[in-house]
Amino acid sequence: MPPAPRPPDAARRSERARTAVLEAALALTAERPYPQVTVEAVAARAGVSKATIYRWWPSRGAVVVDALAHRARTGGDHALPDTGELEADLALVLRAIVDELADETWSSLLRALTVETLLDEGLRGQVLETIFAPQLEAFGARFAAARAVGQVGEGVGDLEALELVVAPVFHRWQQGSGPLTHSYADGVAARACRALAPA
Amino acid sequence: MPPAPRPPDAARRSERARTAVLEAALALTAERPYPQVTVEAVAARAGVSKATIYRWWPSRGAVVVDALAHRARTGGDHALPDTGELEADLALVLRAIVDELADETWSSLLRALTVETLLDEGLRGQVLETIFAPQLEAFGARFAAARAVGQVGEGVGDLEALELVVAPVFHRWQQGSGPLTHSYADGVAARACRALAPA
Repeated sequence: MPPAPRPPDAARRSERARTAVLEAALALTAERPYPQVTVEAVAARAGVSKATIYRWWPSRGAVVVDALAHRARTGGDHALPDTGELEADLALVLRAIVDELADETWSSLLRALTVETLLDEGLRGQVLETIFAPQLEAFGARFAAARAVGQVGEGVGDLEALELVVAPVFHRWQQGSGPLTHSYADGVAARACRALAPA
Repeated sequence: MPPAPRPPDAARRSERARTAVLEAALALTAERPYPQVTVEAVAARAGVSKATIYRWWPSRGAVVVDALAHRARTGGDHALPDTGELEADLALVLRAIVDELADETWSSLLRALTVETLLDEGLRGQVLETIFAPQLEAFGARFAAARAVGQVGEGVGDLEALELVVAPVFHRWQQGSGPLTHSYADGVAARACRALAPA
């Protein structure tokens, strides 16, 4: 006989505990060096047992990826601005990214996410699907609009175009090789648009 | 009284042990998941004690960075090809990078290096100085030659130009977001050159 469905208040308690775990993971990743963000520490902060965490997630990395996806879902709309001027719109997006990276909380989370995806191919696939794919779709819609008005050539795919826009910024952030300023963001947008313009 | 200088055979033994540690770290990083590349495991493979490793390096990450720098030093010349055609030369360099990333040994090392630098700002600085700076210098020399013949505009710095060339490839490698083929390498080189050309 299958188990009886759980009563609604148990489901609500369970959802509250899941959210508490995700928020504890976000908070701790922002507060301490990542090696100290253990499953024990997350459980203690969330007020649940380690067993509860392992019932829902196979590893610390899986919790972090889910926490970031949770933050992305609650962070609202992904659509890019569309003023009709691709370069100005991309500069705006890149300035916002640069501002986010200057926030040590966000930067720590992104470092943790990057570490986990480098160590675990399964998580990398999950990040691609839950975090990267929606971003690519949003950029793709903006590039399509730009193609329609002749600001982007036909030969370049959305993924290649996205890389031109965001890869330099994340490369610089990860290497610590140079300043991440608004004027740098503007330069990246300008160079991307030159590369993307129809021949 | 200062200690007497060590006799030459002790110095030679010491140098041999250092090299054994670096090569053990390279080998293990290629063989197993990175969390299993412990200082114990490296010591056992190199035939030295853990204490010997900690005498020279403060952490596993420091050993890995040194191992990569060791590989880079013994890997020979950094100079870029210069046929007079920037796009063809960059395509050649990018094809070689793509080939290296397809090699699971090299890819594992680079993942380990990236993880360590994300977790330790001190190591990030060390990688910038010992691995990144020589690459930037080599690219800078090639961009200078390209500026002299009007293939690169005056407005773009060497770091920004380097990012246009390599960041898309490493972004794609890290995300697993698309194929890393020679034809992709050629496309990245072409787009970078369009972005770099004088206005």
